[in-house]
Formats: sequence, structure tokens, C-alpha cells
Amino acid sequence: MAKINQNFLNLQGSYLFSEIAKRRTKFIQDNPNAQIISLGIGDVTRALPEAVTKAMHAAVDELATVSAFRGYGPEQGYDFLVNAIIEHDYKARGIELASNEVFVSDGSKCDVGNIQEIFSQDAVIAVQDPVYPVYVDTNVMAGRSGAFSKETNRYENIVYLPCNAENNFKPSLPDRKVDLIYLCYPNNPTGMTLTKDELKVWVDYAKANDAIILFDSAYEAYIQEEDVPRSIYEIEGAKDVAIEFRSLSKTAGFTGVRCAYTIVPRGVKAKDENGNEVTVADLWNRRHTTKFNGVSYVTQRGAEAIYSAEGKAQIATLVDYYMSNAAIIRDGLKSLSLTVYGGVNAPYIWLQTPNGLDSWAFFDKLLSEANIVGTPGVGFGQSGQGYFRLTAFGSRENTEKAVERITKLSL
Amino acid sequence: MAKINQNFLNLQGSYLFSEIAKRRTKFIQDNPNAQIISLGIGDVTRALPEAVTKAMHAAVDELATVSAFRGYGPEQGYDFLVNAIIEHDYKARGIELASNEVFVSDGSKCDVGNIQEIFSQDAVIAVQDPVYPVYVDTNVMAGRSGAFSKETNRYENIVYLPCNAENNFKPSLPDRKVDLIYLCYPNNPTGMTLTKDELKVWVDYAKANDAIILFDSAYEAYIQEEDVPRSIYEIEGAKDVAIEFRSLSKTAGFTGVRCAYTIVPRGVKAKDENGNEVTVADLWNRRHTTKFNGVSYVTQRGAEAIYSAEGKAQIATLVDYYMSNAAIIRDGLKSLSLTVYGGVNAPYIWLQTPNGLDSWAFFDKLLSEANIVGTPGVGFGQSGQGYFRLTAFGSRENTEKAVERITKLSL
Repeated sequence: MAKINQNFLNLQGSYLFSEIAKRRTKFIQDNPNAQIISLGIGDVTRALPEAVTKAMHAAVDELATVSAFRGYGPEQGYDFLVNAIIEHDYKARGIELASNEVFVSDGSKCDVGNIQEIFSQDAVIAVQDPVYPVYVDTNVMAGRSGAFSKETNRYENIVYLPCNAENNFKPSLPDRKVDLIYLCYPNNPTGMTLTKDELKVWVDYAKANDAIILFDSAYEAYIQEEDVPRSIYEIEGAKDVAIEFRSLSKTAGFTGVRCAYTIVPRGVKAKDENGNEVTVADLWNRRHTTKFNGVSYVTQRGAEAIYSAEGKAQIATLVDYYMSNAAIIRDGLKSLSLTVYGGVNAPYIWLQTPNGLDSWAFFDKLLSEANIVGTPGVGFGQSGQGYFRLTAFGSRENTEKAVERITKLSL
Repeated sequence: MAKINQNFLNLQGSYLFSEIAKRRTKFIQDNPNAQIISLGIGDVTRALPEAVTKAMHAAVDELATVSAFRGYGPEQGYDFLVNAIIEHDYKARGIELASNEVFVSDGSKCDVGNIQEIFSQDAVIAVQDPVYPVYVDTNVMAGRSGAFSKETNRYENIVYLPCNAENNFKPSLPDRKVDLIYLCYPNNPTGMTLTKDELKVWVDYAKANDAIILFDSAYEAYIQEEDVPRSIYEIEGAKDVAIEFRSLSKTAGFTGVRCAYTIVPRGVKAKDENGNEVTVADLWNRRHTTKFNGVSYVTQRGAEAIYSAEGKAQIATLVDYYMSNAAIIRDGLKSLSLTVYGGVNAPYIWLQTPNGLDSWAFFDKLLSEANIVGTPGVGFGQSGQGYFRLTAFGSRENTEKAVERITKLSL
């Protein structure tokens, strides 16, 4: 009998959101009349911007005719989209990128999950704790994690960088040599950010310690404050040490349409086992072209449209909508004297569970007593224990209703 | 400095189709007036079926309204599509599948590339030779291939199953123990098929020898002959030993729209390092939900539409169109006394290069003298040396023109 990749058995429990879905489904089965409000999974709920749907219709019409039909496109994305990304997301902020540094994909989840493949088996990875589970789980599958300790709720070979109230959710530098550092800002799940000076510490550290930063910037569009970097490449030297992941999922409501991109500057180098320098972008390009066949043409045309004047205005309206929700949740919870973080430059509110409840206990309480689905902080790592994530992606009506229901709880 | 995955340096040259694109681009630069006809990459050229574009427009309209908007869907695909696949592609042929055995994805290239991840590092793989390069390259990246020998043009730890004129392109069983057997039927690149009895030999072998068959069936829609199995599950016992990959790329013109699916029957088992049986579908599900976020909703609605009566008729017309092209190429080349295979149950024609030319020499000759781009057989493996692939995916006009140009060559 063929043998499995044993590392898969080292994965802990279900993927967080599957577990939430399971508990939610069971609750609905037991309480068919409950009006559940989901502020759990970070999924958008507003319609796609009109500029996007218009472009998608036009693209479908093209594919309906022989003369305009397009089959396989470049795996890295069509020039029209790559150029729009470079122009609007980077050049407009003074960042120069070449087109062979941009890789369009069908989702940041895929990219942040797959990026580890191009690095060595013994690479030591560092993650923030709490953390988006995909960074950890994909390294577990690859065999880099070491054994899991039930006692610490951590894998022994992964370097965890705790982010908690004590350090205002800003991690300390690793206390041992690491090769790959996953940073996510604006942060999922805490909703917190770093200033330019704070991020510069990480870039300098990576340079000085031969590490590569994997910078997940999926929530960049939600940044409101001036001193918060929109891209890690605003920091001097970052183009030598950082790979940046961006997604249209939250920026433009693309969670069901699927488009993201990854920037791998050609200055980012790693070494082979003989100590020779290798351009990381070349490896990623090889991986991308060998295991991926490009994003739907219709999706790419929709993505291009977010960079039009009309599209930009519509996206700004979307972001405003969700950020107003964030303010409603933030203010509502604060008025209950709950301790609340995030929600200023990110669509996530990170709250300290009241009365020392653990995260899943608070999940169950919120589900059963207020019929609200949120995300238990501990699902993102041990440092998330005692915290809970709510998202601003609901409708205004549901967001207000949810806050009202929470207000009525005995907390 | 972080270290790379050293296995990437064990990859040979560029990915085949990138190399073809490079030579083509150079030729066009040097000969800007040449009217190139591409019968190289297996990419469709006809418009999407009307049923599909209609469904895609309707789906875009849904996403344009808050009430019908959908964000993240199930990573494994929406029920409406999974059920249509089970009903029309399987139940209609007497094959029963459960919905948790179907995994919708954005392309078979991804799935056949990623499937190896769930198996052990020391799994021995067998591939047909010639072979779709993705099977080999993804195992090279994973470190299963051993060293490459320039002398044999092969990796030392991969078991190659030669398919050539001598065995009528039907491989012999492996001569040593293997764990994973990649089979592709109708075959890319040779265009040849197996009968049910011939495929049964492989299923029986896999059962007797504890191997798993990875059955790539991307060209199933092109099968014309009665005794050629459409699915490996038509063979008794296959649900215990075979994973099947299907794609809408060639079936319905989806190369630019991106939809495929993989069947992992729950009867397929592998063992962990302690010898315990593991259900392979559970591992694939975990991989799929951790590293992938579902196919575009618009694409999935388009895919569903191919199973409507209207859609089925339109797809049949598409397939007929391409298969008429195949007949034109096949008959044209035969009339020149060239030795030709395939093109009967597949959109690929596999010809023996004349006068003992090697594959790339024939590529260059065809490009420079007839301005036709084809695919060198040796690009698919050493047993492809001296062969050449032409595809039936061009327009009728170009296909006829190409055959006319070849007729005028001095071969």
C-alpha cells in the first residue's frame, strides 16, 4: 500500500473555520428558528462594485466570440492587470516594480500556503501568535514544524512571536535564528498595525540576520492612519528581504471571484546548499508556471476594473461601509467596558473575553445566547486564548443588531 | 541567508511550453511578417458555449446585488456543481459517487501537480514516457526523482514506462515496486487510448501490488470509440485504487475560465508509517481546504451549464469541430506517407518525424519552413524523441492551411 505524507497526521484538529462551521451547523439543527448573525469568517457581504461587474460582463462577451476568445493566459497574469497593479498599488506610492516581480494568483491563501515549497526543508519559520492558521498548517504538512505539544499548544520547531495586550500586539524580534518570518499587517486576527518605524525594525533585522519576511498585506485597503505603511516596500531595503502578498478578496469583495497577487522582488535572494545565491523570484516563477495555470480571464478583467477612477471610488465606498461597521462594534463593545483592540485600520475587532472565559467558551456563549458566530482567538494560537475576533464584514443592519444583542447579554 | 529547496535546481531546463514560447517569440522577432499557425500548446480556440456564457452572465448579475451576493464558497465546490458532475459524468455511466469524493478545482494542472504532496517522501512513482511534464516536475520539486542523467534524459528514481510504436503506445507493467502510477488516457501527448480490458490490467496490478493509480482523464470528452472507458471507475475495483482527474478545459473550452475536478473515492487507502490505513480522500480534503479557497462562483455556474441539455449539445458541437480537425491533420499527414498515431479518440496527433530528424530539429524546421508551431515529442520524455505532437485545437481554416503548408515541405 502506498504510504501517506506522515506530516499530515501531525496537523491539529480541523482547520479552524471548518470547526466553526461544524458547531454553527449543529446549533442551527438544534435551533432551527434562531436568527444567526455571522461575524465569524472574514467574508465580505456587499455586492461587487459596478465597475467590476461591468468589466466581467464584457469579458464574458469576449469569450462568447471566436474572434475575441482567449484560452490559457500567462500563468503570472495578463499584462493589463500586472501593469495596473504596478502603476496604482506601487508606483503611486513611489515604489518601482518590474512586471516579472508580480505574480497574479487565485488567492492569497494559495500563495501564502505554497510559498514555503521553494525553501529548504530545514528552514526555521517564525510566526506571530495569534496567527492565520494557513502559515502554520502548510509548514506542518511540509514537515518543518516538529512535534506538537498539547501542553504548550505549539509545535516545537516553530518560533512563535507572541502578540498580546502586554506588548500592544507588536511582536518582539525572534530570540533565535530564523529563516522565514511571516508577518501580517494590518493583522489578522488582531486588527492591529505597525508604524513605518516599527516595520523598519523588522526589515533591518531580516537584512542583518539573513532572513526573508513573508508579508501578508491582505487588509491593506483598510488602513486609515497616515503613518501605517500600505506596503512593506515603503521601508528602505525591503525589496531585498520581503515578499508581499496582496488580495482583492477584502479590497474589492472578491472572496467568491478569486484574485490575488504576490510580489517577489528580484533583489530577494536565498542560497543553495553550496552557498550560491539564487534569485527567489525565479524559483517562485518556476513553481507558479508548473503548478498553476493562471486566473480566470473574466476575474482578471474584473480586477483590472478596480483601478479605474470609477472602480476606485466604488471600492472606497465599500471600505467605508465596513469600517463604519467596525466603529459600531468597537464603540458598542467599549461602552460595555469590554477591552477591545483593532477595528481602526482593519476590519477586525479583537476583544478580550470577559470574566476570564476561554475563547471557545465565549464562542459557545455568544452562539447560544446571542446567536452570533465569531471566531475564538485561541483558534489562531495559544496567545489568542482569552481573545475573540469579530469582523466588520456583516451588513449594517446585522452589525447593529449584533451589538444590540451583545449589550443585552450578562457578561 | 535562507536556503532554497535544493530540488528545484534538479529541474531540467524550462518548462516545455515556456521553451516553445521563447523560440516562437524569437522567430517572430526575426520574421515579423510570418503568419504563424500554432498547433503546439493544447489550447482551445473556439468560443465558449452559449449556455456557459449565459450562466456566467447570470452569475455576475447575482454578485452585483447584495441579496444574491456570494463570497467564499465551499473549497470543494458548490453542491449544484458537485451534484451535476456526479449525476451526468458518473451516475449516467453506472458509477456511484458520494459528494465528499468530488473536489472541484481551478485546473487539473494544479491537481495533478499537488496530489503528490499527500504521499510519502519516499514514494516511488511511475510515469508513462512520453509524459505530461507536470507529473515529473512536481515530483522533482518534492525531492522524489533522484539525480537526472543527461545520458538517459531521465531521473534515476522515477520508473519510466516507455510508450512507443513497438508497443503501440501501451506501456508494460512496472518491472519494480512502485507506489503511484500516473496514467493519462486518452493520452497526452500520443493521443492513444486503452480498451477496458487493457485498463483492467492496470487496476488489477494496482490492487495486487498496493499501488495507487493517478488517472488523468482530461481528454475524456474526445473519446469516440465504444470500447474505450470514459472513466477508470468503469473498471471493477478501480474505486479502491484510483484517483481520477477531469478538466473542463478541453471539454468545454475552459482553458481561460479555469475549472476542473478530482475524484478521490473513499475506498482508496494508503498507510501511515505505523502501517495503519488512512483514507486518502481525508488527506486530500485537508490539503484542498488548507491551501485553496474554491473556484470562482462565476466559473462554477458556467461549469454547471455544460450539463444542461443545451450545454451538452453545444459541447458535442465543439468536440465534433476539433475532431474533424484531427481527421484533417491525420489524413493529410498519412497521404504524405508519414507515420501517424492518435487523433481518433483524442485531439492530439502524434507523428513520427521524417528522415530520422530529432524532435527539436523538426520543430525548428516546421517553424522556419512552414511557420507552424508544434510540440517536440522529446519534450515529453526520452521515448518521445523522434516524435512530434500536433493539436486539433486550431481553427478549421488554420488547420487546413497548416496541412497544406506541410504538404509543400520537402520532408
